This record gives sequence, structure tokens and C-alpha cells, in this order.
Amino acid sequence: MVPTVEWRDGSLRMIDQTRLPLELVYRDYTDYRDVIRAIRTLVVRGAPAIGVAGAGAVALAARAVRAEDGVSLVEALRPACREIAAARPTAVNLSWAVRRMQAVAESVAGEGAEAVREALSAEVEAMIREDVETNRAMGRFGAELIPDGVSVLTHCNAGSLATAGYGTALGVIYAAREAGKRVRVFADETRPVLQGARLTAWELLQEGIDVTLITDSMAGHLMRRGEIQAVIVGADRIAANGDVANKIGTYTAAVLARAHDLPFYVAAPLSTVDPAAPDGDAIPIEERDPSEVTDVLGKVRIAPPGVRAANPAFDVTPASLVTAVVTEKGAFRPADVRRLFEAGADPDSFRIRPPAP
Amino acid sequence: MVPTVEWRDGSLRMIDQTRLPLELVYRDYTDYRDVIRAIRTLVVRGAPAIGVAGAGAVALAARAVRAEDGVSLVEALRPACREIAAARPTAVNLSWAVRRMQAVAESVAGEGAEAVREALSAEVEAMIREDVETNRAMGRFGAELIPDGVSVLTHCNAGSLATAGYGTALGVIYAAREAGKRVRVFADETRPVLQGARLTAWELLQEGIDVTLITDSMAGHLMRRGEIQAVIVGADRIAANGDVANKIGTYTAAVLARAHDLPFYVAAPLSTVDPAAPDGDAIPIEERDPSEVTDVLGKVRIAPPGVRAANPAFDVTPASLVTAVVTEKGAFRPADVRRLFEAGADPDSFRIRPPAP
Repeated sequence: MVPTVEWRDGSLRMIDQTRLPLELVYRDYTDYRDVIRAIRTLVVRGAPAIGVAGAGAVALAARAVRAEDGVSLVEALRPACREIAAARPTAVNLSWAVRRMQAVAESVAGEGAEAVREALSAEVEAMIREDVETNRAMGRFGAELIPDGVSVLTHCNAGSLATAGYGTALGVIYAAREAGKRVRVFADETRPVLQGARLTAWELLQEGIDVTLITDSMAGHLMRRGEIQAVIVGADRIAANGDVANKIGTYTAAVLARAHDLPFYVAAPLSTVDPAAPDGDAIPIEERDPSEVTDVLGKVRIAPPGVRAANPAFDVTPASLVTAVVTEKGAFRPADVRRLFEAGADPDSFRIRPPAP
Repeated sequence: MVPTVEWRDGSLRMIDQTRLPLELVYRDYTDYRDVIRAIRTLVVRGAPAIGVAGAGAVALAARAVRAEDGVSLVEALRPACREIAAARPTAVNLSWAVRRMQAVAESVAGEGAEAVREALSAEVEAMIREDVETNRAMGRFGAELIPDGVSVLTHCNAGSLATAGYGTALGVIYAAREAGKRVRVFADETRPVLQGARLTAWELLQEGIDVTLITDSMAGHLMRRGEIQAVIVGADRIAANGDVANKIGTYTAAVLARAHDLPFYVAAPLSTVDPAAPDGDAIPIEERDPSEVTDVLGKVRIAPPGVRAANPAFDVTPASLVTAVVTEKGAFRPADVRRLFEAGADPDSFRIRPPAP
């Protein structure tokens, strides 16, 4: 599996996801403002991946800022941190990662500016490693819920490319295969930006997983024909009550799953949970440029001149439609995820047990 | 409103819908085989429009066939009629129109070959006129179900461009406006062939109707936010039990409408009803070339080389999800439509009454 985001000797290397699936291009970033642009223009996307990219941007900013000592460096970093955290509004992992970097900087500020810079570099590397480990743990818990021989629908890309590596929803697929299960995937193309067609289909082909690409309008028909047995997606933010914000179209997939009595799973690390958002209504939904709808990938105009288009990039799936949220601590009913943030919580006591084989 | 299909002095003129929305190009056909190609390649599409185009193709074939007399002309026409009726499998209007043309030919066969040719030309003209009249009648019945000030979702194009003129689902919108009602339309772009983005958005802009283009993945989100109050679509074939085959994605729109307690209307002429199909399972679903999914409009490759794609062009919405079928005889519960084909049926006795204003 190719690494999506890497920290290499003080520069951030990322796959340019706008060039996939026809070209695999890496880009090296040394200026945090270029990383912000890369996040906005979807060179890197996927909640966990933009989290680590944002952490990388903070480390880069720290190398550019002039400061006499650690405390003034931490202070001078604040505006860049605010800019980085605001690059995209919906995925909470970005502000989570920036806050974590700031806390690290503060913790070593007394040791001087260079110590802060070194600690931030080390923290980016740690976060990249942790993200992959988190995804592998999540995959193992999720794989227990996936029976042998099923066909799974996924929406958008919640794979290796959406994370530092391995993936969340697709990580569950990879782990199921590692556990010896046969899994077939239907990938929604995921208009408007086509992350399913461009990224999920590419990634699953690379990994040798049986994948069939469909338009977003076909999943209902396939469910009605009995060709899909489960849905698994990632998340950009999970509210305290278990409501899930994810790529536009996820809610429709959840409604369809419920109408056909299929399980609907969300795989996301705990960094995606926002205990400060009481429910989905508190999650900001990014409205992107309408040209993503009226033109395909900036290459073909598909709509008449002058037409208005809506382009909400995410939607909210109410907790009532979510069978389980799969995290690195286990699979839980969506309303139970917040309990993981309570002091002394014992995940074993409210984890969903997979059915006996 | 520009005419979609015209019969002009022995040639068939059609808008080339593959060139919309950026160019309005007319094409004149004198060879029935070119009309078959035009139907297959979606130069003309929409169940009623391919019905009249098919009728035109029969009239063109009759002009090309050499025959001593009317009876041998009718006989010699049969292979062309079979080819024309088979150009696309799902819309029943095509075989309905071809059968109707054959019946006309047989009825005047005794009067000589030229009389058959003239009768067929006259019949094409009559069918085009009738289609527009049918749509206007349907529009008036449908408009009674549309309250003032609503926002309506439509899928694919069931407008003037899908018929000889005026439209079925969009005819209801036009009639509602003629009745003084304000109607706003959300148009699903309708992947893979984008009839919503290319044709519905173009047609509604031309007619000055308030239209917002969305991807197929956005309708659920807008319903959840209360921004859509009704769904109206056309149909390619309606089975005897009221199951409706229509453009892929229609079933998903119907499931979403039900989940949000919104009415789901189907507007279609009686020529779309196939009393010989007991239910939706008996309706053949056309599987089109996967390149329509992996490439957008033949212009941009969006998927990795070698990926498999599914491309069912239609789906079936069960009668249980359809609030009413709007026909030229009135609006009916889907299971009641078959009663219109019974001898002595009185539509007044089972028509759906609109709510008192």
C-alpha cells in the first residue's frame, strides 16, 4: 500500500489525489500555505489524511517562523494554526490535529525554539504511525462484523488514500480479507468529485479486491435485487449523539440500507468524534463551488450556461440509521461512542459483540 | 418550446440531444436505419419521443421498400419493424408505436403501396400531434396535485425533449405554472448520461422555470432539510400492477420520498402502460456499455483502467412507493391504471381527486 502522507526530513510528501487514477504523482511541501491550498483543492482529502497533513503544515510553519525562544515561537505560530484548522470546515480531525500539535509545542516551549521544532517534527511522524495503527485496530474490530462472501457498498473513499495509510472503511475490507474472508465491493462513484471512481476503484484494484464501480444512482437498484448485503463508509465528524457527517450521498445510502434491512457501518477513529457537537445540526456543512457540479473534474461542461447548482459537500446521517460505529477501541452503537470520552469508561462493557460464527 | 421530433415532407427531423446543452443541432433522417442508430445512441431518448421516432422510422422504411402492392409492402416492412421495435428494450412506447403503424398499414393495404405510404406519413403526423395533446391533458390533471409554492424534485428528463413536445413530468410543472402556481424544481443530474444536467436544466431555463441542478447524491440531504416537497418523474414502462420502470435512480428517489413522507408522482401516457407485464420483474432492464460509467460523455476518463462497472439504464419502482400515476385520463393509484384498459371502464369512478384548495 503506497503511503498517502509522509514526513521526510522536514518536508511533507503527499500523493496528488487530483491526478489519480490515471497518474500517481507525489508532491513535496515545505511551505505550510501550500499545504493549506492542497487541502482546499483536494490534493489531499479524507478526514484522517487532512488531519495528518494539517499536523505537517504546523510543523512546516514552525520551521518558517522566526523566534528568539520557544515561548515566542508558540505565540508566533498561532495565526498559522488558525489558518490551517480553517482550511476545510467539516472534518473535525483537522482542528483536532492542530490542537494536538499546539499542545506538544507548549509542552516543550521552555526548552527553546529548536526543541519546539524538533518536537513538532517528531509528533507528525508519531501521528502518521498512530493513524495507520489505529486503522489496523479498527479494521480488526470491523472485520468481525463482515461475514464471509458478502458484497459491501461503500461511498466516497475511506481507504488508504483518505488516511496516512490502510484506511478506515476500506481498512475493514482489507482486514476481513486478511482474516480469510471473501469480500466483494460496489464502489459508488461519488459525484461531484468522484472519489469513488477515481480513488476507491484505483485503490481496491491495486489491492486485488473484487470491485465494481457504479453511479450513486444504482445502489438502490442493486439492493432491491439482493446484490448488496452491507454498507460501510467513513466519517468526517461524529456528533456526541452519534449523528455522522460524511460525504454527500452517505445519508441516501443509509436510508436505502434501512429500507432493505441491511446493516450500515461507519468506520472512523476517535479523532473524528466531536463531543462538543451535541448532534448533527451542530456540524458545519461545507458548501463548495457549484462548478464541481456543472463541470466534471474541471474538464467537461455538462450543464447549460447560467444554471444554478447546489454543492453541499457533506450530509448528516442520523444515529438512528447507523448500525455501528467501528473505532480503534471496538464497534459501538452510535449513541455509546461518547462514553469512550468519559473518565474510567470500560469499552468492553458496551462494545458490540459480533455474532458467533 | 422547440419541437423535439417533426415529420417534414417525408423526412424525420430531430434535435440531436447528445449535443445539448451547449449546442442546439437538428438532424434530418431519411433512412430508418439511421433513426435506429439515433435511438440507440441517445440522439433521441425519452419513452414518448422514441415512440414517435420509431413511428417515423416505420414511415421512412415504407418509402424505401419496393413493393408491387400494399399487401406485399406490409409484408416487406415486417423485418424493418422488428428491428425498429428492438432498438431499445425497456420503453414499451417503441413497440406500441410500431404496432400502431403496422395496424394502419394493414388497414389500407388493399388500396395500394402508395396509399400505405401516405397513411403512414399521416399517422406519424397524427401521433406527434396526439403526443403533445396527451401531454397537455396529463399536465392539467397533474397540476391539480401540485400546491402553489412547492419545490419539486425530478430525475432524468421527462420534458419536452423526452416527448414530441411539452413533456410528461415537466409538462405537469408547465401546466402548474400556466395555472398560476409558483413551482421550483431541483433537477437530479442523472448519471451516467446526465439527462438532468444536460436536458432538464436546459429546458427549464429556456422556459423560465426556477431550477437548481444537483447531483443524484444530494436529493436525500435536501429532503431531510425540508427543501423538497414532492417528486415527479416520467416512466419507460408501467406494469399491470403499477410497478414503474424508469431511469436508473428513480427507485432511490422513491425510497427517499417515502422515508420523508413526500408524494411520489409518475407522469406517463397510457402508451407507457404494458398490461402484458404482470409486474416490474417482467420488464426487461437495458444494460448499457460500462464506458458510460467509467467515462463522462465519452470525453473524460474518471476510473482506473481495467475496472469493472455496472450500467443498468433503468430500475423498477414498486407500485407501493408510487402515490399516483398521472395519465391523459387523470391521476390514478398505480394499481388502478390497468382498469383503464378494461371495456366500459369509467375513469371518473376511480380517479384520484385533488384536495380541495
